[in-house]
This record gives sequence, structure tokens and C-alpha cells, in this order.
Amino acid sequence: MSDLKDLMEKLQVKPGEKAKLKDRDPRDLSFFDEEEETKGATAALAKEIDVLQDRLYAEGSRSLLVVLQGTDTAGKDGTIRGVFNSTGPLGVIVTPFGPPTRTELAHDYLWRIHAACPRRGTIGIFNRSHYESVLIEKVKKLSPAKDIEQRYDEINAFEKHLAENGTTILKFMLHISKSEQKERLQERLDDPTKNWKFNPADLEDRKLWDEYQEAYETMLHRCSTPWAPWYVIPANRKWVRNAAVARIVKGMLEAMDPQYPKPNWNPGDFTIL
Amino acid sequence: MSDLKDLMEKLQVKPGEKAKLKDRDPRDLSFFDEEEETKGATAALAKEIDVLQDRLYAEGSRSLLVVLQGTDTAGKDGTIRGVFNSTGPLGVIVTPFGPPTRTELAHDYLWRIHAACPRRGTIGIFNRSHYESVLIEKVKKLSPAKDIEQRYDEINAFEKHLAENGTTILKFMLHISKSEQKERLQERLDDPTKNWKFNPADLEDRKLWDEYQEAYETMLHRCSTPWAPWYVIPANRKWVRNAAVARIVKGMLEAMDPQYPKPNWNPGDFTIL
Repeated sequence: MSDLKDLMEKLQVKPGEKAKLKDRDPRDLSFFDEEEETKGATAALAKEIDVLQDRLYAEGSRSLLVVLQGTDTAGKDGTIRGVFNSTGPLGVIVTPFGPPTRTELAHDYLWRIHAACPRRGTIGIFNRSHYESVLIEKVKKLSPAKDIEQRYDEINAFEKHLAENGTTILKFMLHISKSEQKERLQERLDDPTKNWKFNPADLEDRKLWDEYQEAYETMLHRCSTPWAPWYVIPANRKWVRNAAVARIVKGMLEAMDPQYPKPNWNPGDFTIL
Repeated sequence: MSDLKDLMEKLQVKPGEKAKLKDRDPRDLSFFDEEEETKGATAALAKEIDVLQDRLYAEGSRSLLVVLQGTDTAGKDGTIRGVFNSTGPLGVIVTPFGPPTRTELAHDYLWRIHAACPRRGTIGIFNRSHYESVLIEKVKKLSPAKDIEQRYDEINAFEKHLAENGTTILKFMLHISKSEQKERLQERLDDPTKNWKFNPADLEDRKLWDEYQEAYETMLHRCSTPWAPWYVIPANRKWVRNAAVARIVKGMLEAMDPQYPKPNWNPGDFTIL
């Protein structure tokens, strides 16, 4: 297992970098040991994340926002289960962003996002996010090109605002290959317990694979900032994906180093009758 | 370990029953085996709850609402950790209810409650709840007695509405003794990692212990209904508390028996290119 700093360095899109997804291997194994060992390490990390989350909650002054993006079947739900199941629901809130409702459409595209940002002391996980506004909306031309062009800078400004006000941001793009997506869609057709996840519309999106990859590249290029960098996670193998995300989340929480608040009283001040 | 039906029968307040908390032993061990064995069984139950929750999520048509009430230090947070940590944050949402904000006070007392009810397919956990409106508000006379008297029936009608619209409701009162509370408050004073949980105002509430117990009894008597019964959980021992709640939650999810939805297509209808 390699160094966390190396891992982050390798997976991060540097501010200003023109990220080419073809140069990033979704099957990359170079940062991990053998599968079973890595799974054990991830389970241990998940428990450490739980402990750090408890301190973050106690401290009550900062928050962590984890943004998950990826094509259909990229494994957003699976990442949440794999990395955060030991952390439990106390102090961790997942917000899935589907197509905007009529009420949401009556506001600007960041309105519902801002409303769902994690309160102090908590970890917020966005299952899809404001980035849909420069992905599906761009590929399917749901908004004028001029509006979409403005959004990259708007999003950067919004995230800077969050970062300056106590929210640490981690953005993960779960990167799978086109052939891996085919296998996963086929599994949803074949496995009765996964049928419910199959959406015929996903096949329409699959036809636009290249357009989506290009929109992702533009997003990575324009919106990887010093205050909210993107990480491209090799996600063809679920255990590699979970291991990479868990290590980065745990490393970031450790760097935040949340502290139990010091009381402004002494135990002797009180007598419990 | 005794039968689930017996356990539920014993802990449930029957509709119309005048519950006497003094007759319910917060140290009751009669329903459980030895401590280590019970803890292992609870961990196994937590994993089964996770599997059932996944089916509930897939089914997407019903929800489960878990209401947790109890005096300060009764262990509401601990119950959530103990029973739901394996279930993770995907599909489980915890809502803590503190003193109402100015916006919330500008509405009726059920407004913020209704807004936080779990969406279909999810489990919602209320850490405190609408019952504060007949507990602290009654004991501290924060609302007119006439208003509070009306609330029991209003709450029953509200919960009936939820039940008839697809929400299964489980209400747990975590029952601890006055001496157990003393120990736990002292621990918060003495243990630096627990100092942040200590609130001097809790000592004021402790002086009103008897008044609170009486308000709880009235709540149990008036609001244990066929569609949303109260369970009084012996909570002096954390492992007993978690075991009892886990068994009832798991039993209820099993009785709900959520199903993976049947697709309205055949796998052969689609070819993935």
C-alpha cells in the first residue's frame, strides 16, 4: 500500500490541468495491495472515519462535504455503503439529487444545493450534485450554452464561499470504462434483486457516452480548484474504488483534526443531586 | 432469549392502558441472555436490518418512522449508533428536534415534524419529536394547558394519517432510573471526551424529574394507539436497550416484508450496445 500523499497526488486533477479521462485507467491497481487485504484495510478505515466523525460532531464548528459524481452504474450508492456504513446515520446525511422538481426549477440551480449543504458538525454526502448542471444539462442541451458556460465560474465561487465558511469539500468522480458499464447494466437486467435499478433511459444516456466523457473532462478542467479539487477514482473494481475514497476521506478528516470542545466550567462547579 | 412476540407484548403500552413507569423496571433483564451473547446477537440483527432496509429502499412505496424519546442521558444517540450504524446513512435519515426556531414557532407544532417525515423507501429516525410538545412544554408550562390537552388527540390523528399513507411507526421511550441519570451526568462532568454533552440546563430539568415522569405517563396513556403504540424500553443497561430496540425494529421490518419491485419488462427487451 502506497503513501496517502502519493495517492491523492496521483488521483487529483491539478487546478488548471486539462484532465484526459483516457489517460486515467479505471482499472488502475497500482496503489493497492491484494484484494482481501485491501478490503480489510478499508473496513478498518471506515471505523476510523466513524471515530473522527464523532469528534467533528462534538466540535460542532466545521463540516465535510463529499460530492459523488459518475456515469450511471459508476457506483455512487455502493461507495456510500462501502465507506460510510460504519459511520451510521448519526451526523452523516446523504442527499440524492434527481431531476429538479417544479419548485426547484423555480429557483436558480444552486438553490437546492445550498439548502442541502451539511450543517456544522456533520458530514454531507451528495449523491449526484450541482455538477449535473454542467453534465446532463450540457449533453442534452437542457439549458442555453451561454448559461452553462457561466456555471463553471459560478460553481467555483459558490464552493469557495462554502470553504471559507467552514466546509471542507471533497469531490470524487467515479471513473468506469464503457465496457464495465455494459456489464453492470446487463447485471441489472439479469439479477432479479437488481432489476429495480434498471432504467431504460440509461441506455439512451449510454449512447451519449463520448459526449458525457467530454463534459466530465471540461468539468474536471474548469472546476478543480485549490479549495475544492476533483479526484478521479479508478472505479472498475469496487474494492479499489472504496479503498481510494476511504483513504482520502479518512486522511482529510485527520488533517481537519476536530477537537472535543473545552468546557467553560470545572467539574467541581456542579453537584448532581 | 425469549420470543419477539412476548418481548413486544411486555414492553408495549396497550391502547388505553394507564402506564405506570414505577411498575416498569429500567434494569429489567428478563428478556435477554448474558451480556456478551446479547451484544453479538444485536450486531447480527443490525446487519439484518441493513438487508431489510435495502429491500424497503428498492420497493420505494412505504417508510418506517422510529421515534426516540427519553429524559436527558437516556441514550437516544447511543441507540441510533447501536442499532443503525450497520445500516449506514443511505436510506436512513436522523432528524434531531431541538428547541423550535423562530420560523418553526411561526407555524403549528406539527409543521416541522411533518416536513421531516421519511420519504417512501426510507427509515426516518426522530431524535426527540413532536412529543416534546406534551413533555417539556407541559412541565415548563411553555404552552397553555388547554392547548396541551388538545394535542394528544391531534397527535393521534396525525400519526393515523401517516400510518394510513404508508408509514409504519415505532415509538420507543428509553426508560432510565433517576440514579442512572445521576451517574451518566457525572460521567459527562468527569470524562473530557463527554464534557461537550454536558448542559447545565439538564440539572434544572433533573429537579423536575417527577413532573417529567408524570408527563411521560400521560403521553404513554393517551398516545399509545393500535396504529402507533409506545414501547417502554428498559434502558439502564445500554446493551439491553439496544437489543430490545434492534429486535423490535427488525421484527417490524420483517413483518412489513418489503419486496423488490417486479419490472414491467423482460431482460430480452433490451440489448446493451
